[in-house]
Amino acid sequence: MITIRAAVPEDFDLIWPMLRDVFRAGETYAVDPDITAAQARDYWMGQAKATYIAEAAGRIVGTYYIKTNQPGGGAHICNCGYIVDPDARGRGIAAQMCAHSQAEAQALGYLAMQFNFVLASNAGAVRLWHRLGFTTVGTIPLAFAHPTQGYVDAFVMHKALRDETR
Amino acid sequence: MITIRAAVPEDFDLIWPMLRDVFRAGETYAVDPDITAAQARDYWMGQAKATYIAEAAGRIVGTYYIKTNQPGGGAHICNCGYIVDPDARGRGIAAQMCAHSQAEAQALGYLAMQFNFVLASNAGAVRLWHRLGFTTVGTIPLAFAHPTQGYVDAFVMHKALRDETR
Repeated sequence: MITIRAAVPEDFDLIWPMLRDVFRAGETYAVDPDITAAQARDYWMGQAKATYIAEAAGRIVGTYYIKTNQPGGGAHICNCGYIVDPDARGRGIAAQMCAHSQAEAQALGYLAMQFNFVLASNAGAVRLWHRLGFTTVGTIPLAFAHPTQGYVDAFVMHKALRDETR
Repeated sequence: MITIRAAVPEDFDLIWPMLRDVFRAGETYAVDPDITAAQARDYWMGQAKATYIAEAAGRIVGTYYIKTNQPGGGAHICNCGYIVDPDARGRGIAAQMCAHSQAEAQALGYLAMQFNFVLASNAGAVRLWHRLGFTTVGTIPLAFAHPTQGYVDAFVMHKALRDETR
Protein backbone atom coordinates (compact mmCIF):
# COMPACT_ATOMS: atom_id res chain seq x y z
CA MET A 1 0.00 0.00 0.00
CA ILE A 2 1.26 3.44 -0.89
CA THR A 3 -0.09 6.85 -0.01
CA ILE A 4 0.36 9.85 -2.25
CA ARG A 5 0.43 13.39 -0.89
CA ALA A 6 1.39 16.88 -2.02
CA ALA A 7 5.10 17.57 -1.52
CA VAL A 8 6.30 20.31 0.83
CA PRO A 9 9.56 22.19 0.15
CA GLU A 10 11.42 20.17 2.78
CA ASP A 11 10.71 16.98 0.84
CA PHE A 12 13.22 17.97 -1.80
CA ASP A 13 16.18 16.83 0.27
CA LEU A 14 14.57 13.40 0.53
CA ILE A 15 13.77 13.02 -3.17
CA TRP A 16 16.97 14.59 -4.52
CA PRO A 17 19.04 11.36 -4.24
CA MET A 18 16.37 9.56 -6.32
CA LEU A 19 16.23 12.36 -8.92
CA ARG A 20 20.01 12.67 -8.96
CA ASP A 21 20.56 9.00 -9.71
CA VAL A 22 18.01 9.02 -12.55
CA PHE A 23 19.32 12.27 -14.07
CA ARG A 24 23.00 11.28 -13.70
CA ALA A 25 22.30 7.97 -15.47
CA GLY A 26 20.98 9.97 -18.45
CA GLU A 27 18.90 7.05 -19.73
CA THR A 28 15.30 8.21 -19.40
CA TYR A 29 15.00 11.99 -18.92
CA ALA A 30 16.14 14.75 -21.28
CA VAL A 31 17.95 16.51 -18.45
CA ASP A 32 21.60 17.55 -18.24
CA PRO A 33 23.27 14.67 -16.36
CA ASP A 34 25.33 17.27 -14.48
CA ILE A 35 22.22 19.08 -13.19
CA THR A 36 22.76 20.60 -9.74
CA ALA A 37 20.46 20.07 -6.76
CA ALA A 38 19.23 23.66 -7.08
CA GLN A 39 18.44 23.22 -10.77
CA ALA A 40 16.71 19.91 -10.09
CA ARG A 41 14.62 21.54 -7.37
CA ASP A 42 13.55 24.21 -9.85
CA TYR A 43 12.81 21.61 -12.55
CA TRP A 44 10.86 19.23 -10.29
CA MET A 45 9.23 21.64 -7.82
CA GLY A 46 9.80 25.27 -8.85
CA GLN A 47 8.38 25.16 -12.38
CA ALA A 48 5.70 22.64 -11.44
CA LYS A 49 2.07 23.42 -10.76
CA ALA A 50 2.21 20.73 -8.09
CA THR A 51 4.62 18.04 -6.90
CA TYR A 52 3.65 14.84 -5.11
CA ILE A 53 5.31 12.19 -2.98
CA ALA A 54 4.45 8.49 -2.82
CA GLU A 55 5.18 6.87 0.52
CA ALA A 56 5.12 3.28 1.76
CA ALA A 57 5.79 2.33 5.37
CA GLY A 58 6.94 5.88 6.11
CA ARG A 59 9.52 5.87 3.32
CA ILE A 60 9.42 7.88 0.06
CA VAL A 61 9.20 5.45 -2.85
CA GLY A 62 8.32 7.82 -5.69
CA THR A 63 7.57 11.36 -6.78
CA TYR A 64 5.85 13.12 -9.63
CA TYR A 65 5.08 16.62 -10.85
CA ILE A 66 2.29 18.27 -12.83
CA LYS A 67 3.22 21.25 -15.04
CA THR A 68 1.39 23.34 -17.61
CA ASN A 69 2.86 21.99 -20.84
CA GLN A 70 2.57 25.17 -22.94
CA PRO A 71 1.58 28.69 -21.88
CA GLY A 72 -1.07 30.81 -23.57
CA GLY A 73 -3.35 28.87 -25.90
CA GLY A 74 -1.73 25.57 -24.89
CA ALA A 75 -2.29 25.95 -21.14
CA HIS A 76 -5.19 23.47 -20.95
CA ILE A 77 -2.77 20.55 -21.38
CA CYS A 78 -0.51 19.44 -18.56
CA ASN A 79 2.71 17.49 -18.53
CA CYS A 80 3.83 15.07 -15.80
CA GLY A 81 7.09 13.39 -14.87
CA TYR A 82 7.34 10.35 -12.58
CA ILE A 83 10.26 8.74 -10.79
CA VAL A 84 10.12 5.56 -8.72
CA ASP A 85 12.81 4.60 -6.24
CA PRO A 86 14.85 1.78 -7.85
CA ASP A 87 14.39 -0.32 -4.69
CA ALA A 88 10.60 -0.05 -5.02
CA ARG A 89 10.19 -0.93 -8.69
CA GLY A 90 7.81 -3.65 -9.87
CA ARG A 91 5.14 -2.78 -7.32
CA GLY A 92 2.90 -0.70 -9.56
CA ILE A 93 3.93 2.58 -8.02
CA ALA A 94 4.31 4.40 -11.36
CA ALA A 95 0.82 3.25 -12.38
CA GLN A 96 -0.64 4.44 -9.07
CA MET A 97 1.11 7.79 -9.37
CA CYS A 98 -0.13 8.19 -12.95
CA ALA A 99 -3.72 7.42 -11.97
CA HIS A 100 -3.39 9.90 -9.09
CA SER A 101 -1.93 12.52 -11.42
CA GLN A 102 -4.84 12.22 -13.85
CA ALA A 103 -7.34 12.88 -11.04
CA GLU A 104 -5.25 15.78 -9.71
CA ALA A 105 -4.83 17.24 -13.20
CA GLN A 106 -8.60 17.15 -13.71
CA ALA A 107 -9.10 18.84 -10.34
CA LEU A 108 -6.62 21.52 -11.42
CA GLY A 109 -8.74 22.12 -14.51
CA TYR A 110 -6.53 20.55 -17.17
CA LEU A 111 -8.33 19.02 -20.15
CA ALA A 112 -5.58 16.67 -21.29
CA MET A 113 -2.18 15.28 -20.32
CA GLN A 114 0.84 15.06 -22.60
CA PHE A 115 4.22 13.36 -22.28
CA ASN A 116 6.67 15.13 -24.58
CA PHE A 117 9.59 12.77 -24.57
CA VAL A 118 8.98 9.07 -23.80
CA LEU A 119 12.02 7.19 -25.04
CA ALA A 120 11.48 4.18 -27.28
CA SER A 121 14.25 2.50 -25.27
CA ASN A 122 12.12 2.84 -22.11
CA ALA A 123 9.86 -0.04 -23.15
CA GLY A 124 8.33 -0.52 -19.72
CA ALA A 125 7.15 3.08 -19.60
CA VAL A 126 5.76 2.93 -23.15
CA ARG A 127 3.75 -0.20 -22.29
CA LEU A 128 2.51 1.28 -19.02
CA TRP A 129 1.35 4.59 -20.53
CA HIS A 130 -0.49 2.72 -23.30
CA ARG A 131 -2.16 0.49 -20.71
CA LEU A 132 -3.24 3.62 -18.82
CA GLY A 133 -4.96 5.05 -21.87
CA PHE A 134 -2.30 7.22 -23.46
CA THR A 135 -1.97 7.33 -27.24
CA THR A 136 1.29 7.82 -29.11
CA VAL A 137 0.59 10.97 -31.15
CA GLY A 138 4.14 11.58 -32.36
CA THR A 139 7.49 9.91 -32.94
CA ILE A 140 10.59 12.12 -33.03
CA PRO A 141 13.26 10.19 -34.92
CA LEU A 142 16.57 9.61 -33.11
CA ALA A 143 15.69 12.33 -30.61
CA PHE A 144 17.77 11.10 -27.68
CA ALA A 145 21.43 10.15 -27.37
CA HIS A 146 21.19 7.10 -25.10
CA PRO A 147 24.44 6.39 -23.25
CA THR A 148 24.58 2.76 -24.40
CA GLN A 149 22.01 2.40 -27.22
CA GLY A 150 22.97 5.36 -29.43
CA TYR A 151 20.26 7.59 -30.85
CA VAL A 152 16.77 6.36 -29.94
CA ASP A 153 13.34 7.68 -30.94
CA ALA A 154 11.17 9.65 -28.53
CA PHE A 155 7.39 9.40 -28.45
CA VAL A 156 4.89 12.16 -27.76
CA MET A 157 1.98 10.62 -25.81
CA HIS A 158 -1.39 12.15 -25.06
CA LYS A 159 -4.56 11.42 -23.09
CA ALA A 160 -7.71 13.53 -23.02
CA LEU A 161 -9.01 13.99 -19.47
CA ARG A 162 -12.31 15.66 -20.35
CA ASP A 163 -14.74 15.53 -23.22
CA GLU A 164 -13.82 18.99 -24.54
CA THR A 165 -10.57 17.59 -25.94
CA ARG A 166 -11.52 13.90 -26.35
CA MET B 1 16.66 41.56 -51.02
CA ILE B 2 17.04 40.95 -47.32
CA THR B 3 20.13 40.53 -45.21
CA ILE B 4 20.18 38.39 -42.08
CA ARG B 5 22.56 39.06 -39.21
CA ALA B 6 23.05 38.06 -35.59
CA ALA B 7 21.00 40.21 -33.22
CA VAL B 8 22.66 42.40 -30.61
CA PRO B 9 20.94 43.15 -27.28
CA GLU B 10 19.92 46.64 -28.44
CA ASP B 11 17.88 45.11 -31.27
CA PHE B 12 15.27 43.94 -28.79
CA ASP B 13 13.63 47.35 -28.56
CA LEU B 14 13.21 47.28 -32.35
CA ILE B 15 11.75 43.78 -32.56
CA TRP B 16 9.57 43.98 -29.43
CA PRO B 17 6.64 45.73 -31.20
CA MET B 18 6.60 42.88 -33.78
CA LEU B 19 6.81 40.17 -31.09
CA ARG B 20 4.26 41.97 -28.95
CA ASP B 21 1.66 42.14 -31.70
CA VAL B 22 2.07 38.45 -32.56
CA PHE B 23 1.98 37.32 -28.92
CA ARG B 24 -0.94 39.60 -27.97
CA ALA B 25 -2.96 38.23 -30.91
CA GLY B 26 -2.53 34.73 -29.46
CA GLU B 27 -3.14 33.05 -32.78
CA THR B 28 0.18 31.37 -33.65
CA TYR B 29 2.50 31.07 -30.62
CA ALA B 30 1.88 29.20 -27.36
CA VAL B 31 2.88 32.26 -25.35
CA ASP B 32 0.92 34.08 -22.67
CA PRO B 33 -0.77 36.95 -24.57
CA ASP B 34 -0.02 39.17 -21.56
CA ILE B 35 3.72 38.48 -21.75
CA THR B 36 5.83 41.48 -20.68
CA ALA B 37 8.68 42.96 -22.69
CA ALA B 38 11.19 41.54 -20.19
CA GLN B 39 9.68 38.06 -20.43
CA ALA B 40 9.61 38.28 -24.23
CA ARG B 41 13.25 39.33 -24.27
CA ASP B 42 14.12 36.28 -22.16
CA TYR B 43 12.02 33.98 -24.39
CA TRP B 44 13.35 35.30 -27.71
CA MET B 45 16.93 36.26 -26.81
CA GLY B 46 17.81 35.12 -23.27
CA GLN B 47 17.00 31.43 -23.58
CA ALA B 48 18.12 31.25 -27.19
CA LYS B 49 21.43 29.92 -28.42
CA ALA B 50 21.33 32.69 -31.03
CA THR B 51 18.88 35.30 -32.30
CA TYR B 52 18.87 36.83 -35.77
CA ILE B 53 17.44 39.87 -37.51
CA ALA B 54 16.30 40.12 -41.13
CA GLU B 55 16.64 43.59 -42.62
CA ALA B 56 15.53 45.13 -45.89
CA ALA B 57 16.38 48.70 -46.87
CA GLY B 58 17.68 49.39 -43.35
CA ARG B 59 14.44 48.27 -41.70
CA ILE B 60 13.91 45.15 -39.56
CA VAL B 61 11.41 42.91 -41.37
CA GLY B 62 11.79 39.70 -39.38
CA THR B 63 13.54 37.87 -36.57
CA TYR B 64 14.19 34.30 -35.53
CA TYR B 65 15.89 32.37 -32.73
CA ILE B 66 17.70 29.03 -32.45
CA LYS B 67 17.41 27.15 -29.12
CA THR B 68 18.46 23.74 -27.89
CA ASN B 69 15.15 21.90 -27.88
CA GLN B 70 15.86 19.48 -25.00
CA PRO B 71 18.84 19.38 -22.64
CA GLY B 72 20.94 16.29 -21.90
CA GLY B 73 20.45 13.45 -24.37
CA GLY B 74 18.16 15.61 -26.52
CA ALA B 75 20.60 18.49 -27.00
CA HIS B 76 21.55 17.59 -30.60
CA ILE B 77 18.15 18.86 -31.83
CA CYS B 78 17.42 22.56 -32.03
CA ASN B 79 14.18 24.48 -32.11
CA CYS B 80 13.53 27.73 -33.99
CA GLY B 81 10.85 30.40 -33.94
CA TYR B 82 10.30 32.93 -36.73
CA ILE B 83 8.32 36.16 -36.90
CA VAL B 84 7.87 38.33 -39.99
CA ASP B 85 6.72 41.94 -39.80
CA PRO B 86 3.06 42.00 -40.97
CA ASP B 87 3.94 44.78 -43.43
CA ALA B 88 6.59 42.57 -45.06
CA ARG B 89 4.60 39.35 -45.50
CA GLY B 90 4.38 37.58 -48.85
CA ARG B 91 7.98 38.32 -49.80
CA GLY B 92 9.48 34.96 -48.85
CA ILE B 93 11.15 36.31 -45.72
CA ALA B 94 10.12 33.36 -43.52
CA ALA B 95 11.52 30.94 -46.10
CA GLN B 96 14.80 32.86 -46.27
CA MET B 97 15.06 32.98 -42.48
CA CYS B 98 14.35 29.23 -42.26
CA ALA B 99 17.03 28.41 -44.86
CA HIS B 100 19.45 30.67 -42.97
CA SER B 101 18.56 29.01 -39.67
CA GLN B 102 19.26 25.54 -41.03
CA ALA B 103 22.77 26.60 -42.11
CA GLU B 104 23.38 28.33 -38.77
CA ALA B 105 22.07 25.33 -36.82
CA GLN B 106 24.44 23.04 -38.70
CA ALA B 107 27.32 25.43 -37.99
CA LEU B 108 26.34 25.33 -34.30
CA GLY B 109 26.60 21.53 -34.41
CA TYR B 110 22.93 20.59 -34.29
CA LEU B 111 21.96 17.39 -36.09
CA ALA B 112 18.26 18.13 -36.56
CA MET B 113 15.65 20.86 -36.19
CA GLN B 114 12.27 20.43 -34.54
CA PHE B 115 9.19 22.64 -34.37
CA ASN B 116 7.17 21.61 -31.30
CA PHE B 117 3.94 23.43 -31.88
CA VAL B 118 2.91 24.35 -35.44
CA LEU B 119 -0.80 25.09 -35.36
CA ALA B 120 -3.02 23.35 -37.90
CA SER B 121 -4.83 26.70 -38.24
CA ASN B 122 -1.58 28.29 -39.45
CA ALA B 123 -1.92 26.71 -42.89
CA GLY B 124 0.64 28.96 -44.56
CA ALA B 125 3.33 27.93 -42.07
CA VAL B 126 2.46 24.23 -42.41
CA ARG B 127 2.77 24.45 -46.20
CA LEU B 128 6.02 26.40 -46.00
CA TRP B 129 7.72 24.01 -43.56
CA HIS B 130 6.72 21.04 -45.69
CA ARG B 131 8.09 22.76 -48.78
CA LEU B 132 11.36 23.38 -46.92
CA GLY B 133 11.77 19.69 -46.12
CA PHE B 134 10.17 19.33 -42.71
CA THR B 135 8.11 16.24 -41.92
CA THR B 136 5.10 16.19 -39.62
CA VAL B 137 6.13 13.63 -37.00
CA GLY B 138 3.31 14.24 -34.53
CA THR B 139 -0.19 15.66 -34.19
CA ILE B 140 -1.32 16.79 -30.76
CA PRO B 141 -5.12 16.80 -30.80
CA LEU B 142 -6.85 20.06 -29.89
CA ALA B 143 -3.64 21.36 -28.36
CA PHE B 144 -4.27 25.09 -28.78
CA ALA B 145 -7.19 27.30 -27.82
CA HIS B 146 -7.39 29.58 -30.85
CA PRO B 147 -9.14 32.89 -30.11
CA THR B 148 -11.63 32.51 -32.97
CA GLN B 149 -11.39 28.89 -34.17
CA GLY B 150 -11.70 27.03 -30.86
CA TYR B 151 -9.35 24.13 -30.10
CA VAL B 152 -7.05 23.36 -33.02
CA ASP B 153 -4.45 20.61 -33.47
CA ALA B 154 -0.73 21.30 -33.20
CA PHE B 155 1.88 19.54 -35.30
CA VAL B 156 5.37 18.46 -34.29
CA MET B 157 7.64 18.93 -37.32
CA HIS B 158 11.18 17.68 -37.83
CA LYS B 159 14.03 17.88 -40.30
CA ALA B 160 17.37 16.06 -40.07
CA LEU B 161 20.28 18.38 -40.82
CA ARG B 162 23.02 15.74 -40.92
CA ASP B 163 23.26 12.11 -41.86
CA GLU B 164 23.64 10.90 -38.26
CA THR B 165 19.96 11.52 -37.64
CA ARG B 166 18.60 11.23 -41.19
